[in-house]
Amino acid sequence: MQMLKERIRKDGKIMAGNVLKVDSFLNHQMDTDLFLELGKEFRRRFADVEINKILTIEASGIGIACVVAQSFHVPVVFAKKTKTKNIAGDVYTSTVESYTHGRVYDIIVSREFLGKGDKVLLIDDFLANGKALEGLAALVEESGAELAGAGIVIEKGFQVGGNLIRSRGIRLESLAIVESMDEKTGTIVFRGDEA
Amino acid sequence: MQMLKERIRKDGKIMAGNVLKVDSFLNHQMDTDLFLELGKEFRRRFADVEINKILTIEASGIGIACVVAQSFHVPVVFAKKTKTKNIAGDVYTSTVESYTHGRVYDIIVSREFLGKGDKVLLIDDFLANGKALEGLAALVEESGAELAGAGIVIEKGFQVGGNLIRSRGIRLESLAIVESMDEKTGTIVFRGDEA
Repeated sequence: MQMLKERIRKDGKIMAGNVLKVDSFLNHQMDTDLFLELGKEFRRRFADVEINKILTIEASGIGIACVVAQSFHVPVVFAKKTKTKNIAGDVYTSTVESYTHGRVYDIIVSREFLGKGDKVLLIDDFLANGKALEGLAALVEESGAELAGAGIVIEKGFQVGGNLIRSRGIRLESLAIVESMDEKTGTIVFRGDEA
Repeated sequence: MQMLKERIRKDGKIMAGNVLKVDSFLNHQMDTDLFLELGKEFRRRFADVEINKILTIEASGIGIACVVAQSFHVPVVFAKKTKTKNIAGDVYTSTVESYTHGRVYDIIVSREFLGKGDKVLLIDDFLANGKALEGLAALVEESGAELAGAGIVIEKGFQVGGNLIRSRGIRLESLAIVESMDEKTGTIVFRGDEA
C-alpha cells in the first residue's frame, strides 16, 4: 500500500536491533484518518471472504482494529494479556512470547465472545516473529471459530513470522512488508520495490 | 445519552462488589458502530472547546478513543502502562492505582507526543475512583499542554471519581452516570432518571 510505505519512509525511525519505530502515527500516537484508509484496503483485500468478527491483541492492535472494523461493520474482540477481576474463569487461553517486551505472557479471550459460527479476521500492527499472531490463531482454533485470515499493517519480511504464518496455510495480507532497513543510511526497502 | 443507557440495561451485568460488566460491547468485545455514536455525542458536548489531541490509557480506552477521534479529526495518544524497549527515556510519567487490577502501576507518554500547544481531551471507558483520569491529567499538566476536558462513557456516580475530577475544575462529560445498581434485582438507576 503506497500511502503507508510513504508514511513509514517519512515518519518511521530505524533504531538499533532492527527496531522500526513508527510510534508517531501507528502505535503510541495514532493517526486514525490513516487507520480508516488501512481499513478500506483490508476490506478490499478480503472482499471475497466472509468475516463477522475481528480479533486483535492489546494494546497497540486495538485502535487499528476498531477503526478497521468500520469498513467491515463487525464487532472487535481483543485478547487480554493479563487476567483481570472482571473476567470469569471461562476463557480461551494461549501463551505468547513477546519480542518487544522480552517476556512470556498468557493471552485470554472470554468464551462468550468467540466460538463456532464466527469467521474471524486477525488484525495487528506488526508481524515480526509471528508469536502474537500464532497465539491469536490458537485461540480461534480452540474456540471452534473459523480463521478467515490475518491483516497486518507492517510485516518485517526479514524475520520469520510471515513465512511461519503463511506455511501454516493462514491467509496473510500485510500492507507493507519491510524487506530490509539500514540504520546508518535510514533507508528502507519494501518487498516489491527492490531493483 | 439514552441509547447508551438502554444498551447498558440490555447487555450490562451487575456483579458482586459493585462491578458492572459491559464487556460484550464496551471493553472486551467492542461495538464500534456504537463507539461512532458516542464520538458524535462527545463532539456535540465539547463543540465549544478547541481540541487538537485525544489522550487515553491502555488498554480498554484505546478502541473508544480511536473511534471517537473520527468525530474530532485529531490524533490519539495512549498512555502506556509499562516501559517497553521501543520507548526512549524521554517520557512523562505518573502513578496510577488500579481498582480493577488491584495494583499500582506507572503510566508513561513519550514527550514527543504531548506538549505546549496541545489542547487535550481525555477519553476513557469507565470512571470509578478517578485514579486513571487523575494520572492522565497529571501527564497533561507535566507536559505543559492544556486540558480541555474529559469524556467518559460510564461513570459510577456512587464512587468518588466524578466528584474528585469535577472538584479539580476539570470539565467532565459522562455519557451515562450510574447512580445505583442492584445485583439481586438487576436494576440500574442512572443520574437524571431517578423518580
